[in-house]
Amino acid sequence: MRTLHVKTATADYPVYIGRNLLAQIPRNKAVAGRRAFVLTSPEIWALWGKNLLAAFSRNQQPTVLFLPAGERHKRLAQIERLASELAQAGADRSSLLIAFGGGIIGDLGGFLAAVYMRGIDYLQVPTTLLAQVDSSVGGKTGVNLASGKNLIGSFHHPRAVFADVDVLQTLPEHELRAGLFESIKAGIIRDAALFRYMEQNSASILARDSAALEHVIVASIRMKAGVVAIDERESGLRMILNYGHTLGHAIEAATGYRTLLHGEAIAWGMLAALQIALARRTVGPDQAERIEQTILAYGPLPPFRATPAQLLAAAGRDKKNRAGTRRFILPKGIGNAIVVEDATDAELNSAIRWMLARARMGR
Amino acid sequence: MRTLHVKTATADYPVYIGRNLLAQIPRNKAVAGRRAFVLTSPEIWALWGKNLLAAFSRNQQPTVLFLPAGERHKRLAQIERLASELAQAGADRSSLLIAFGGGIIGDLGGFLAAVYMRGIDYLQVPTTLLAQVDSSVGGKTGVNLASGKNLIGSFHHPRAVFADVDVLQTLPEHELRAGLFESIKAGIIRDAALFRYMEQNSASILARDSAALEHVIVASIRMKAGVVAIDERESGLRMILNYGHTLGHAIEAATGYRTLLHGEAIAWGMLAALQIALARRTVGPDQAERIEQTILAYGPLPPFRATPAQLLAAAGRDKKNRAGTRRFILPKGIGNAIVVEDATDAELNSAIRWMLARARMGR
Repeated sequence: MRTLHVKTATADYPVYIGRNLLAQIPRNKAVAGRRAFVLTSPEIWALWGKNLLAAFSRNQQPTVLFLPAGERHKRLAQIERLASELAQAGADRSSLLIAFGGGIIGDLGGFLAAVYMRGIDYLQVPTTLLAQVDSSVGGKTGVNLASGKNLIGSFHHPRAVFADVDVLQTLPEHELRAGLFESIKAGIIRDAALFRYMEQNSASILARDSAALEHVIVASIRMKAGVVAIDERESGLRMILNYGHTLGHAIEAATGYRTLLHGEAIAWGMLAALQIALARRTVGPDQAERIEQTILAYGPLPPFRATPAQLLAAAGRDKKNRAGTRRFILPKGIGNAIVVEDATDAELNSAIRWMLARARMGR
Repeated sequence: MRTLHVKTATADYPVYIGRNLLAQIPRNKAVAGRRAFVLTSPEIWALWGKNLLAAFSRNQQPTVLFLPAGERHKRLAQIERLASELAQAGADRSSLLIAFGGGIIGDLGGFLAAVYMRGIDYLQVPTTLLAQVDSSVGGKTGVNLASGKNLIGSFHHPRAVFADVDVLQTLPEHELRAGLFESIKAGIIRDAALFRYMEQNSASILARDSAALEHVIVASIRMKAGVVAIDERESGLRMILNYGHTLGHAIEAATGYRTLLHGEAIAWGMLAALQIALARRTVGPDQAERIEQTILAYGPLPPFRATPAQLLAAAGRDKKNRAGTRRFILPKGIGNAIVVEDATDAELNSAIRWMLARARMGR
């Protein structure tokens, strides 16, 4: 087991990464002696619920709440229902919520913890690779509006994160790959050694070798924790984490969040943004080729259909854009990234068309 | 105009109290140069909207959003609708929300600002006395669940508070009186001079003499700001602000939030809690008589019907009670208050029966 620490202006908490971590949760000091509530999905609970429950003593058994799978349930209506269930079950300010599932469970569960009685403590126990390397660290929580993803939310850090490598053994293949795209992103924007590791070890990583996965997860979380420590509220450096996200979010919106997994949309977004980086020469042709090949090594990237106009409009509504400017993240070589404020519609259009030509058939 | 400052561990903002303040809002540094959105009620807007708009220059006119009057609209469904309207109107992270109305507008508007794009700046422009002296200061924001008031919320401080005494001239009589009960509470628990002022000047205060109202508002806000500065998150001292609130909230819940205004329910709750204080001798008979007479001087207290069992059950669900203890706030003389952790069902029952005997006819 490895332990990293997330330290920000407002929070300081451990992230545990390793095998057989579910068994350790009840002994954690954030849990001991408190009334615990678990928010999970029926699918995860069927696979791993017994393991989690077995670790709790008989008189400390948690109350389990369920959120159905799917992005369409990441809405305020579910917050209303779940908060009512918490209230009915007697949850109070000293209760603890355990968000046990993928990114949607983590985002919505964190927001539920942020707003129930104006904030209760919670743990992140992410069960997808994407959630382990990305959304469980950094304190961003939230739900979607019909008009956009994560438009409602809070900053609310967990008391601890448990990234159990074992639970990844039951992760569907395409979800594993989708999570690995975020780790590649971590390498591209800030950790050249991680990028090289993923470039050279795709076979053992995709075969779910525990040591290889742990290596990737530790490096990915270390990168993100380092960025969040410097810029908790995304006023500067944290924006580089959005590499691939402007167009990735646009793809998700244009396809109704149904066709692609988040990580897959981000992978397409990274490839498209790479074309702008190449044209602006923030990456050289060899670097662009290595980035593209490494992303594709963790493919396939599923096909999707959208029009340039749809994607451009959706990119314009991205909440990362301030009024009047179009902000965009570009890789700068491998292991670094920059924020440009002057990306034009023409540049985006060109990158979007390049991407859509490939997206019809998938990569 | 008087200016007070709220200083907490996480915030530092001014509270302006005086006449003709609406006109000054657009010139405030938190507003200048930003896209502004006003959240208000149709009733307040009809009375005071022109005054607010007239102060904004032609090219700085705010976008106006409406929340219907009534506690039943203080729900997540309205957050969903209003956030969607903000998104459709192009509100971004640099936009400013102006919560212009009573306590419901302030609580819900503050929460909307807290969660829209994970938090945008906002101003409190309270238009009821209750909101001016109580809810607009302290950073508590939130909405109700069917199972309880304010069970969903955040701490999110405004950038500034504008308590305009002029707008109180159109406040319905019973709402003025309801707000004054919170000021009496402020005097009882922490400011003997304010209590005496209200004891001796009920005529000019109820006649809405601007200077008298300003005196009461300044003293009430100063009291609350002082408490919040010491204990932002209600882990200790801030709990004394809940004098009258355990039973007050229980009355509101038992009567479906329809029969009494919040301040009226709190006044009943203060009278009932006073009986426990008298029995425990934390106030003497003369002090109890002065407190009761001063509360009644700002009456009438409207009648209501409930059963002791209803109120006791509702008091038990109050979120201020930690598991296993029944916490209760008692005045200690006049100008001081204490938190007791061991209030018994028998004591509450006795106080509740005393109150219900009077509540059938009102006071």
